[in-house]
Amino acid sequence: MGTVLREVRRFDHPGFASIRIADGVIDRVGEPDATWPKGDEVVEARGRLAIPGLVNAHTHLPMVLLRGLADDAPLSVWLEQHVWPIERALEPDDVYWCSLLALAESIRCGVVAIADMYFHSDAVARATSESGLRALLSYGMIAPSLSEGGRAELEKAERFAAAWHGKAEGRIAVAVSPHAVYTCGDDVWRGAASLAAERGLMLHTHLSETRDEVDAWRQKTGLTPPAYLENLGVLAVPTLAAHCVHVDAADIDILARNGVRVAHCPKSNAKLGSGIAPVRAMRDRGVRVAIGTDGAASNDRLDVLEELRFACLVARALSEDARSLSSRDALSLATTEGRLALNLPKAGIEPGDPADVVLMDVEGSHTAPPHDARSTLAFASQASDVTDVFVGGRPLLRDRRLLTIDEERVQSEVARLAKRLRRD
Amino acid sequence: MGTVLREVRRFDHPGFASIRIADGVIDRVGEPDATWPKGDEVVEARGRLAIPGLVNAHTHLPMVLLRGLADDAPLSVWLEQHVWPIERALEPDDVYWCSLLALAESIRCGVVAIADMYFHSDAVARATSESGLRALLSYGMIAPSLSEGGRAELEKAERFAAAWHGKAEGRIAVAVSPHAVYTCGDDVWRGAASLAAERGLMLHTHLSETRDEVDAWRQKTGLTPPAYLENLGVLAVPTLAAHCVHVDAADIDILARNGVRVAHCPKSNAKLGSGIAPVRAMRDRGVRVAIGTDGAASNDRLDVLEELRFACLVARALSEDARSLSSRDALSLATTEGRLALNLPKAGIEPGDPADVVLMDVEGSHTAPPHDARSTLAFASQASDVTDVFVGGRPLLRDRRLLTIDEERVQSEVARLAKRLRRD
Repeated sequence: MGTVLREVRRFDHPGFASIRIADGVIDRVGEPDATWPKGDEVVEARGRLAIPGLVNAHTHLPMVLLRGLADDAPLSVWLEQHVWPIERALEPDDVYWCSLLALAESIRCGVVAIADMYFHSDAVARATSESGLRALLSYGMIAPSLSEGGRAELEKAERFAAAWHGKAEGRIAVAVSPHAVYTCGDDVWRGAASLAAERGLMLHTHLSETRDEVDAWRQKTGLTPPAYLENLGVLAVPTLAAHCVHVDAADIDILARNGVRVAHCPKSNAKLGSGIAPVRAMRDRGVRVAIGTDGAASNDRLDVLEELRFACLVARALSEDARSLSSRDALSLATTEGRLALNLPKAGIEPGDPADVVLMDVEGSHTAPPHDARSTLAFASQASDVTDVFVGGRPLLRDRRLLTIDEERVQSEVARLAKRLRRD
Repeated sequence: MGTVLREVRRFDHPGFASIRIADGVIDRVGEPDATWPKGDEVVEARGRLAIPGLVNAHTHLPMVLLRGLADDAPLSVWLEQHVWPIERALEPDDVYWCSLLALAESIRCGVVAIADMYFHSDAVARATSESGLRALLSYGMIAPSLSEGGRAELEKAERFAAAWHGKAEGRIAVAVSPHAVYTCGDDVWRGAASLAAERGLMLHTHLSETRDEVDAWRQKTGLTPPAYLENLGVLAVPTLAAHCVHVDAADIDILARNGVRVAHCPKSNAKLGSGIAPVRAMRDRGVRVAIGTDGAASNDRLDVLEELRFACLVARALSEDARSLSSRDALSLATTEGRLALNLPKAGIEPGDPADVVLMDVEGSHTAPPHDARSTLAFASQASDVTDVFVGGRPLLRDRRLLTIDEERVQSEVARLAKRLRRD
């Protein structure tokens, strides 16, 4: 039995169509009034826009707990004085509830897949599994050397991979995540790369996020962070690198020739005063750039539509050139490039594609009059226009109702936790 | 008889309160369970956040018609090849329907007042009057000299002022709008300033929007646009200047000493590749900076919340400094500074303030857990969280239903118009 989305508009075709989903894929795209097998569920979706689900290529789901914390502080102060002290107090159950809150928000924003890095990773995986989303999850390792905690960190990463890679009907993949060059010693990095290579996993890390990080690393090693990692040999493993704000031409060549996938996080980089990654220069040299929200604590939304709009606008503002990033390119960061970054098969709205489909209401005053769908998405739509989300054909949101997450319960658990932590 | 907003949270106070509105002002702010005069209408608004309504200090309402047009073009190409040819075909009724569409979107975004500049101004004023919003409206004059059309332009401006200034229960004020230095000759500018001074009106114009404009003007006159206008003597009239992207230290001093109010339009300036105005430098030297969306054709939203968020983030990104614009300051651009820009009395949520009040749902997953209200507004809230809008105590939006605009009719009129223009 299948599901038919009746009389939708596809983002990349004129006119109306109906889409049949069966066995997790788009089975057929037909005329709006085609006949369908008896027993199919028919979703009346007249006029809604069908788009491939969005991908959030870098986040820390549980950090929704810290939304709005120390809003006007730069990265180092924010991390050391505000974020880390609270994170040290978190229990696995806390991380579970916060992950569910973030996943609820993500689904409402039309997201179908996320790349996460955090700790108490089993709790993140449990929440993700329940949510129905796809994810590349990882345990973020921090250790100055193998002998100073690094071995234990690698064991945690390995246990997590053994427990969750390929699980939840194949929706969850695991990556190995040394947190950054400045938080993991070189033997930890080498150990991480070996672990990833042995198990066929990706690496996921933070790279060249702030000017201070790059300056300090150059002073310490004579190398930029990308050059340092290439030198260590770890970029031979497929790598997802978040941020890449302060990269020069030589760094960009390193990213390109090693096939590093970049998760551009412009709102977080802006909010913390880190700067803006040179997306156009990276793309021009063949670096594959996806988009991420980073954790909600430095954003404060997990809204990939808002993120790609910001990416597009800020690129044009910085270059004083309206052609820096087109609406079409900005959208691709959150779809095609995002799927590539997470190692997911491509998904458009064509027969045979995975049924990772989002429906949007495009009948609000803010999207009128009707015009080019890609332009509407990039510049006019808002997260609350998302009405339905399917992942592998399974409905997670129907007519703005969440089907896999008890949102009220989740909100009250997180509110209680926030109150407890403020009291401590 | 009054209206009581029961058990709301105020954006600038902890805890719950109830707010009584009567005779267009906030009559009393009391305990949530205070007793109120018999016959008052009670709005059950438990947990909703009460904020002063937002101000859009620069827009061209009817340009919603052109939303998404030529998305990836710079200002000059966009204006000359795409916008102007369509605008020449517009009739007053077209402008009326498009204005209503823009006003519907504005109300849904929590906006209570806008500054507009367009043509067929009577139609804009008619729509604004019906909508219930406050507005500073103007006819945008374009004429190389008084003898080449300038006299007729000034007469139009004067007729418009005579017809509408102070009308619609005092909600509408009229400004005199020479479009820009490069579209109006110096005698037209002087005539506009005289007209404004005689009638006690403000000037509203575009100033130093692009690098090309400033370079060309310097080449032609030896002066930057602000210096040129100061030299002409027109800045003696209270002036609202949109954009001010390419202003140097001397320009900023000119703006400051003449009390020019700036409407910062960062999303439009970004989308068209114009650049970003130096908001922090202007504010540091005492220039009063408000925020505007510009027309929807270069944005493509009339969403002041998204605009102030973008202003905040882009200022931090450009300066690589998280302290460039705080969430509190960003909010003030859209409230206190916006009201000043439009010459409206200040309005907070205190007894005696004009009842220009907006209620917001802050119980979504994207604003959880509850935290500082100013931070929520600046970074986490979305336009669709707006549930109720009151202007001078009159409800324009109640529980997300528009009370003054027939949205369905308006959308269908604008869709028909868009279809007609595409056919031409």
